[in-house]
Amino acid sequence: MKILAIDTSNHPMSVALVEDDQLKATITLNMVRNHSIYVLPAINDLFDKVGWQPKDIDRVVVAKGPGSYTGVRIAVTTAKTLAMTINKELVGISSLQVLAANVPNITDNLIVPFMDARRGNVFTGGYQYQNGRLVNVMNEQHVAYNDLLATLKKGNHPVYLVGEMTPKISKNADPLPNNVQLLAPSYAMPSTYQLAILGEKAPAVKDIDDFVPNYLRITEAEVNWLKAHPGKHDESNYVQEV
Amino acid sequence: MKILAIDTSNHPMSVALVEDDQLKATITLNMVRNHSIYVLPAINDLFDKVGWQPKDIDRVVVAKGPGSYTGVRIAVTTAKTLAMTINKELVGISSLQVLAANVPNITDNLIVPFMDARRGNVFTGGYQYQNGRLVNVMNEQHVAYNDLLATLKKGNHPVYLVGEMTPKISKNADPLPNNVQLLAPSYAMPSTYQLAILGEKAPAVKDIDDFVPNYLRITEAEVNWLKAHPGKHDESNYVQEV
Repeated sequence: MKILAIDTSNHPMSVALVEDDQLKATITLNMVRNHSIYVLPAINDLFDKVGWQPKDIDRVVVAKGPGSYTGVRIAVTTAKTLAMTINKELVGISSLQVLAANVPNITDNLIVPFMDARRGNVFTGGYQYQNGRLVNVMNEQHVAYNDLLATLKKGNHPVYLVGEMTPKISKNADPLPNNVQLLAPSYAMPSTYQLAILGEKAPAVKDIDDFVPNYLRITEAEVNWLKAHPGKHDESNYVQEV
Repeated sequence: MKILAIDTSNHPMSVALVEDDQLKATITLNMVRNHSIYVLPAINDLFDKVGWQPKDIDRVVVAKGPGSYTGVRIAVTTAKTLAMTINKELVGISSLQVLAANVPNITDNLIVPFMDARRGNVFTGGYQYQNGRLVNVMNEQHVAYNDLLATLKKGNHPVYLVGEMTPKISKNADPLPNNVQLLAPSYAMPSTYQLAILGEKAPAVKDIDDFVPNYLRITEAEVNWLKAHPGKHDESNYVQEV
């Protein structure tokens, strides 16, 4: 199976072409937020280098968030448009699961990926290897970083924390509980190769039109709108704002 | 510290720019062996995208082998030439250690990276996390894959085997011993980001001129020459041909 994988959900912009578990080519840029400018040329460049045409691929796999609103929208819009245009399957994978997959299947401890969601908050969730598969065992959520640490401390099981400890998070962060180990920064970079592998095994979305990102929180504009229009918030679409 | 990392020692060709533990950009191509054609344009492309000049970097870090003769020579020659031309530090890191670094520091089990060395042989070695550092605990060697498995079986400790199970290796391979776990193929792709991180902490070479690759075996041409010229082989330079 030939896969194009796209991740612009956070700071890095990364694209990869993968065939049957084998990486063909990948480009990752991590110094700008202009994902909208770089992502299509990067995809074009990859196809050129590998010698594939877009019609050759079987699926588009996209990191569907959580992450930056704009970043998630760019990846999902690019992936949906490509999949519809060339009439191929689309698969969305959690951006948190992609981070968790930086830990290979050598442990059954809890793996907790996290991303800076600003103001001391993070997007996070819990994953664990079960029968060789990386499964979600703690709901993905938008939560204060220190509350996450408190929850993990209470659990008192060994935990691997995987993510970038940005200055915004570390500024007011409580010390790590003894049962929690933060992995080195080089394991906090999501891999589009792992994204493709996760997407290879996941079911394709049934209706590409209906596919939406997983923001895990509402935008500030929406918060303000809801304040001005109480009772209009459909809880089924969003999780609690913290 | 700003680092340019280069790895063409095996099938993938990969370059990365890294600053202070943070990946800036990386390109990996894994479908051709024309590393000599692609490596300089890829480096140029990275510098362009990140907005750095070659003179901005502090070190060149290169995967010094083992691997394909030509590939190792391309990487080492490119890295030496660059480091000398722009008068920067050069660091060589074992290509096997780079593979081992795909396993994060969450285990003190033996990590055994391997690469196809043809004819049922592999390049391999043993690494282990000790006080947070990935240290070599089993000599790097050129050995028959089945002999490696027998050695690991005899040790009877848990082992993580990290590498690409090529058809050439698997064709005549004995079954994996119970104490040995082969990691999924997506962890068998060396990361130039991890290479840079390893190189950031390693000492620079004292004399760039004298820096040589680590082939771990002699070429077929040398074998033939030595047959015709017995007694000329300097054992200090090479390990046993298997």
